[in-house]
Amino acid sequence: MPGTVEDVDAPSASDVLRRCRELVRPALVDAVGRLHPWTGEMAAYALGWSDTAGTLEPGGSEGKGVRQALAVLGAEAVGADAACAVPGAVAVELVHTFSLLHDDVMDADALRRRRPAVWKAYGTGPAVLAGDALLARAVTGLAGTPGDHAAAAVRRLCDALNDLVAGQAEDLRFEHRPWDGPGAVGPEEYRSMAEGKTGALLGCALALGAVLGGAPEPTVAALDRAGRHLGLAFQAVDDILGIWGDPATTGKPVHADLHRGKKTHPVLAALAGGSRAARELGTLLASSRPTDAAAERVASLVEEAGGRAATRGEARRHLDAARYALRATPLTRTAARELDVLFAGLADRVM
Amino acid sequence: MPGTVEDVDAPSASDVLRRCRELVRPALVDAVGRLHPWTGEMAAYALGWSDTAGTLEPGGSEGKGVRQALAVLGAEAVGADAACAVPGAVAVELVHTFSLLHDDVMDADALRRRRPAVWKAYGTGPAVLAGDALLARAVTGLAGTPGDHAAAAVRRLCDALNDLVAGQAEDLRFEHRPWDGPGAVGPEEYRSMAEGKTGALLGCALALGAVLGGAPEPTVAALDRAGRHLGLAFQAVDDILGIWGDPATTGKPVHADLHRGKKTHPVLAALAGGSRAARELGTLLASSRPTDAAAERVASLVEEAGGRAATRGEARRHLDAARYALRATPLTRTAARELDVLFAGLADRVM
Repeated sequence: MPGTVEDVDAPSASDVLRRCRELVRPALVDAVGRLHPWTGEMAAYALGWSDTAGTLEPGGSEGKGVRQALAVLGAEAVGADAACAVPGAVAVELVHTFSLLHDDVMDADALRRRRPAVWKAYGTGPAVLAGDALLARAVTGLAGTPGDHAAAAVRRLCDALNDLVAGQAEDLRFEHRPWDGPGAVGPEEYRSMAEGKTGALLGCALALGAVLGGAPEPTVAALDRAGRHLGLAFQAVDDILGIWGDPATTGKPVHADLHRGKKTHPVLAALAGGSRAARELGTLLASSRPTDAAAERVASLVEEAGGRAATRGEARRHLDAARYALRATPLTRTAARELDVLFAGLADRVM
Repeated sequence: MPGTVEDVDAPSASDVLRRCRELVRPALVDAVGRLHPWTGEMAAYALGWSDTAGTLEPGGSEGKGVRQALAVLGAEAVGADAACAVPGAVAVELVHTFSLLHDDVMDADALRRRRPAVWKAYGTGPAVLAGDALLARAVTGLAGTPGDHAAAAVRRLCDALNDLVAGQAEDLRFEHRPWDGPGAVGPEEYRSMAEGKTGALLGCALALGAVLGGAPEPTVAALDRAGRHLGLAFQAVDDILGIWGDPATTGKPVHADLHRGKKTHPVLAALAGGSRAARELGTLLASSRPTDAAAERVASLVEEAGGRAATRGEARRHLDAARYALRATPLTRTAARELDVLFAGLADRVM
């Protein structure tokens, strides 16, 4: 049928992201402008808006803004005006930036989006402070949302924050756990860590849009679930890129996760396989943290033992679950399609 | 008149603090128990409940709990039941603990209440994480308060949080400012820093009790003002102890603030005096960060130039202003008297 919505060319994932960034930007700029000038400068650097001299870097190192887009689409998907989602979009973007700042301190990650991490550029103490300022500003802005939904939105954001911090705690604790034996990290523990660390805020972003749009609880819960599955897919993709990603694209050193002894899905899945490669991998990992040459060998063994394929499957399963959660929920057609495009685009990075 | 309230023996400040701690403790224990076990262990250590092995240290290094007491008394002062203040008391105590954890990281303070700071005992990354967990839990608990006052309470806490973080930012920036000349820290800048860093949360504690107790806005504002003045008195006292305090009592190294080049009230006031001692002090401070012997001399010059007396005067003025703010507000008699006892007791440490 000519003229129906289906015939219109669907926008690409990057079109959707750009539209949402443009919608949210004034409020995000306003929120950062309310910070103390010094923490504001660090926040602008972290958001990729400026360099360490405070000079504008238009669009240079800006993130994709996935979380703010999810908040906007969450509202549109429940038939509300995109504008009502903006306080939620700002809050999740600020919380995400807070978590990047503090995680880079905790993980001693020196690079973020191909630039020195905030703690490298400004010092550890200032980076901690800037993260605190972003977190405080995120909750403040959301708590000040006009209308009847501020309280429910704040409770949602707080729940996600607790999950996020608990997920980061798990991830750090995993580094001290053995690769093998009774103390090893099981698949359920890994899943719970990844859902907290990555899924909670993505779920919250979608859910906040719906909450601010006045959606009923079952719809909000379904969107939260979709976002959490997306987060698990996202984390699986990230784990693959952390081993096999091109440093020019990821902005991180090659084999970064292997050098840190991080318990990522590909390695855990490879070890669980029980093949000859898995046994050799176990021995190699038990001996010490890999040198550059050994990291190369670890990466090969993980692949040979099926770790990469298993993680690709994990990403695919969670992406399917996320899309299913969307399709099983009554949502407006255009937003549902844009969400689908966005979801697929995010997982497509390695598939 | 025999038999009136005035004739009953007033409790001491430590009686008041103990009563409030006992009232709040179950909810505080519950809040810490909801944290991830690892961040919960660090939180229990930071609260002085346990040592680094997680073994209980009953009462050993616990703080006085000034902020939780102010929240409880804030509710009682407006005629409400103390129980309604408990979510506020827990929130301010958790936020205070969060700020101690992160401030110790930023200031590289190795000792807190005569024990290794959390970052010294557990590492910088874990201390940052535990602070984040406490902050998230503080807002979550308050946002979940039953009744009609949760949203207003969350907004109050958020405002205080922003002030707290901005005050800490100012304090850190001051360390890079010159002692003298056009770039020197002026009295109004110092006051604004101290009000944010110390006054905002004390004011918020009192105000939260009143908000949760259903008090009208003018009463809430008066209590907030009283708490902010108390904070400024408190900071002045702290500045005096940071130079002349007995390490056995303060739990910090002697002349700690002088070695760090901190811009504290006694030094700034001494320099502003213009006496011969002030000029010698200026020269000595401009040369380099003081050695042990030079710190001794700096302390003498600050005293000779009137810095200690000026700061004692500052503490007294803000304490008077705090008590005046209380007396000018209609409050229940018993709570008002307990607040007065508490205020006096806190400033009495150096007067």
